[in-house]
Amino acid sequence: MHFTTSASVDGVTGRDLVHDGVPGVLWTPPGTATGLVLSAHGGGQHKHAPGIRARAHACAVAGLAVLTLDAPGHGDRPRTPDDEHHATEIRARIAAGTDAGPLVAEYNALQSARAIPEWRSALDALLALPEFAHLPGAVFWGVSMGSALGIPLVAAEPRVVAAVFGLIGATDQLTTAAASITVPVRFLLQWDDRLIARPAGLALFDALATPRKTLHANPGGHGDVPGHELADAVRWLAERAREATVHTPS
Amino acid sequence: MHFTTSASVDGVTGRDLVHDGVPGVLWTPPGTATGLVLSAHGGGQHKHAPGIRARAHACAVAGLAVLTLDAPGHGDRPRTPDDEHHATEIRARIAAGTDAGPLVAEYNALQSARAIPEWRSALDALLALPEFAHLPGAVFWGVSMGSALGIPLVAAEPRVVAAVFGLIGATDQLTTAAASITVPVRFLLQWDDRLIARPAGLALFDALATPRKTLHANPGGHGDVPGHELADAVRWLAERAREATVHTPS
Repeated sequence: MHFTTSASVDGVTGRDLVHDGVPGVLWTPPGTATGLVLSAHGGGQHKHAPGIRARAHACAVAGLAVLTLDAPGHGDRPRTPDDEHHATEIRARIAAGTDAGPLVAEYNALQSARAIPEWRSALDALLALPEFAHLPGAVFWGVSMGSALGIPLVAAEPRVVAAVFGLIGATDQLTTAAASITVPVRFLLQWDDRLIARPAGLALFDALATPRKTLHANPGGHGDVPGHELADAVRWLAERAREATVHTPS
Repeated sequence: MHFTTSASVDGVTGRDLVHDGVPGVLWTPPGTATGLVLSAHGGGQHKHAPGIRARAHACAVAGLAVLTLDAPGHGDRPRTPDDEHHATEIRARIAAGTDAGPLVAEYNALQSARAIPEWRSALDALLALPEFAHLPGAVFWGVSMGSALGIPLVAAEPRVVAAVFGLIGATDQLTTAAASITVPVRFLLQWDDRLIARPAGLALFDALATPRKTLHANPGGHGDVPGHELADAVRWLAERAREATVHTPS
């Protein structure tokens, strides 16, 4: 993991990095981090997208370090013809008001297969750094395409102790992965989401095996998660991270 | 409104009262109340049921005054033959594992018709007291039978500025009332509720007209709302009450 540039705002430091060829950014709070958030962006976004930066800043202000990686075919990474095809088709269907859901789900599955090894490798590298040696693992936050990655990632990765998911519907692959998740989950659903059919979102929440799961549903479309919900997710993740650190024998 | 006995625990004072023949209790915080909660209990409960007392205490610790009334046919109030019939039948169906839902809905509709005028009259009386003269109105908290009362009450009563509802399903009457509610609502749903069919609960949340509504769903049965959810509802209601007091011209 190579750090390149560094910038600080309000005591929060953002360091751009490259890990095994994947560009990312690590945000850290002023003092010792009380937890580490793996923050995956959504489809069409990138590591410095405004919402992703705002989420990272809020987490860092709450004492958490935050890692974001550019997803395959996103941000500073090369796009394959398949990435270009899916991006163009999905945008066209949304613009035409036709159902982009199946195509989004297909692309999400491709994405997660490529991205999961990258995130696990980056987690190895971060937990090996002296500044994070006190942490037992990480928490995860990713919605939409970020959950398409995160649900199988968290199912496979025992070092992730809690997760914020949402804005995504059940597929065979995700339902199967959800049935292996036993850590606390906050699941965000947008009641009027035109990309994710409401029953599909509810079915995926239903499939999560963990008894510590809460669904938060709000009016509005895919991109309209209210600010109070994001602020509450920061608080909830910070609590889960502290809980895991306190309860892990050192 | 006549106050009878009074007792204090941890600075929170509970005063039993009778208003127009209806027994109730008013809890008040140590200092000036920052809001007033109308707290309606569920079916088979009463004004001093443990969960209702615990909720009132938590609200008072957060600075809120809390009014609870015994529902018709509940607590210290006489039971009509109709009350007895419904209570016996509902208990029998739950014990037998058969669907008590339609009978619960029928009883709830009877209850709300009797209780709404009582609550509105009690609110008149409370807001006329010098200790609450600074308050523009009240917030409401009632789930299950408490929401069967509360949804039509809040639809009809402009002085209620926010509400916690839940553990209840759509009926024609409730759906119609929900379509008139424009104040912020927190709606609690239990994912494995055997009394309330999940689609009926979701449909009632859907019917609420307010753009400021959030559904919180948790695993477990009708009586298993997690403690963190109740604590969060206290915090949310306290914020809504303060917001209403600040924004109302005096």
